[in-house]
Amino acid sequence: MTVRVRVPASSSNLGSGFDCIGIAIDRWLSASVTLHNALSGFSINRRGKLSAVRVRADQDLFTRGFRAACGAAGAVLPAGVTIDATSDIPVGCGLGSSAAAIVAGALLADTALGLGLSRSQILEIGTTIEGHPDNIAPAIYGGAVLSVHTPAGLVCAPLHVARGIELLIAVPPFPNDTKAARAALPQTLPHTDAAIAASRAAALVQGLASGDGALLGAALDDVLHVPFRRGRIPGYDAVVAAARNAGAFGATLSGAGSAILAIAPRERSAAVGTAMLAAWRDLGIEAELIKCTSDVAGASVIAAPRTPHHAPLTTHQ
Amino acid sequence: MTVRVRVPASSSNLGSGFDCIGIAIDRWLSASVTLHNALSGFSINRRGKLSAVRVRADQDLFTRGFRAACGAAGAVLPAGVTIDATSDIPVGCGLGSSAAAIVAGALLADTALGLGLSRSQILEIGTTIEGHPDNIAPAIYGGAVLSVHTPAGLVCAPLHVARGIELLIAVPPFPNDTKAARAALPQTLPHTDAAIAASRAAALVQGLASGDGALLGAALDDVLHVPFRRGRIPGYDAVVAAARNAGAFGATLSGAGSAILAIAPRERSAAVGTAMLAAWRDLGIEAELIKCTSDVAGASVIAAPRTPHHAPLTTHQ
Repeated sequence: MTVRVRVPASSSNLGSGFDCIGIAIDRWLSASVTLHNALSGFSINRRGKLSAVRVRADQDLFTRGFRAACGAAGAVLPAGVTIDATSDIPVGCGLGSSAAAIVAGALLADTALGLGLSRSQILEIGTTIEGHPDNIAPAIYGGAVLSVHTPAGLVCAPLHVARGIELLIAVPPFPNDTKAARAALPQTLPHTDAAIAASRAAALVQGLASGDGALLGAALDDVLHVPFRRGRIPGYDAVVAAARNAGAFGATLSGAGSAILAIAPRERSAAVGTAMLAAWRDLGIEAELIKCTSDVAGASVIAAPRTPHHAPLTTHQ
Repeated sequence: MTVRVRVPASSSNLGSGFDCIGIAIDRWLSASVTLHNALSGFSINRRGKLSAVRVRADQDLFTRGFRAACGAAGAVLPAGVTIDATSDIPVGCGLGSSAAAIVAGALLADTALGLGLSRSQILEIGTTIEGHPDNIAPAIYGGAVLSVHTPAGLVCAPLHVARGIELLIAVPPFPNDTKAARAALPQTLPHTDAAIAASRAAALVQGLASGDGALLGAALDDVLHVPFRRGRIPGYDAVVAAARNAGAFGATLSGAGSAILAIAPRERSAAVGTAMLAAWRDLGIEAELIKCTSDVAGASVIAAPRTPHHAPLTTHQ
């Protein structure tokens, strides 16, 4: 029996939506799982952009997502699990490759073992593993998503994105160290900066919905994380300036980088993309451009057993 | 010649929209101005809720708004200015009474002297005097407004408010000291709290637009200013708990208080209002209830000279 799922890339933060806003991007990871009765544990076969990943199978994010889904459902792990995965999502560049792998692992377990998990349970599983929901949520739900921690749990809401704007992501050939990018954040912030950050997060939601360029420009000029992270990305200032000069409302890190995201009016998007690549090329860096629409779907099962198992396979085969 | 204007009350912050979000409230200040050639300076005649104000006329907010408007337009001040004002906006309770007076003063000058100021110029004038735009903007534009400081100046955008929600404001008979409330804010904040604050500001915009109760509940649970100010308002915790228990999504300070604002689904609003007043009454405090719709208009000129003067009156009379 083979189960196959696909999960989109995502870009988080979008400037001032730090750790709470992300948007699905039209790049995909797909993965299938085969379950065995023979006690062989997890094995992962990686292709595409995943070929470069060097992680032991039992510590891989597919495995962690799969295991956590079983744990959440109180199901026994299968004796042997082989995951075949391929992806065109750049790894380690701030495009949600990790989130996609975690969601894929959980969704494979849910479908193959008939765990009956809800999307919000998979969201909780993914958020626990990743530490924040901003890539996990759009990977699951698609589109742009706001995720807010509340005393009653994590609340997610889809965000409207105006038709007239386009997202452009320039991806350099070097990854960023996500842990180091998080460690670069200060312990405290002046209260005045926190207030500015809040107003710009509000501006991001309203700017995405209305397409208002002044709001988007303010929203993309983050004060909560980008000032502490941009120095880690060679060429950041030049690429952001090039995007603005070519007509973008603004530009910022995609996630914690290394990729840089610009938001532009549709009629300027071609020029903005070209300018971003040219700015990096001037520094000897050949970047790749991803153009994004706002209506990318979330994770889905593209092949599943006709009769889903509703209990762990190991007790039914 | 008499010019008359009216300006609405406003409630700012709405929880997590600290210093950037406000909404016009259906209570009004109205004021008229009479200009004299005799050199007599400013005199202010106050009625209604303004009767309690004890400020020298030359330092009054009407005067400051009037003077700043003349200054922005490069106009000479009239020799004598008499402002007659009345208001049913509670003073010093977090309902934008100050902002309304400033806007009224500026608008009186603009209309009586034909200064030709734009609304955004009056916004800049008011924000400079008040120090923040969150009451000034809804007082001018009406409805709910987001105001964001950007390198290119202040950007304002109307916010959509879902039809199914209602705002309830309980106003106690004691004012709050706005300066002391601002001084109560800390100099710095943990970065984690700043990130939570940003996510909740985003939740406020999305929650107002969609009416999503979970988002509004998160948004009304502010971490940026309310924790440092609520102790100044006797009964705050009891009134907020009563509002929630009666079915409100949440409740918070209106501005810096003393009034408390709740947001509730329309079908619960009567119960929420009653519960808030009862909670304060249990503490021996008789509060007044203001129910709010989202479509309150902004400042307007309700009587003006037929032929506006386009230069300072002192040079034309």
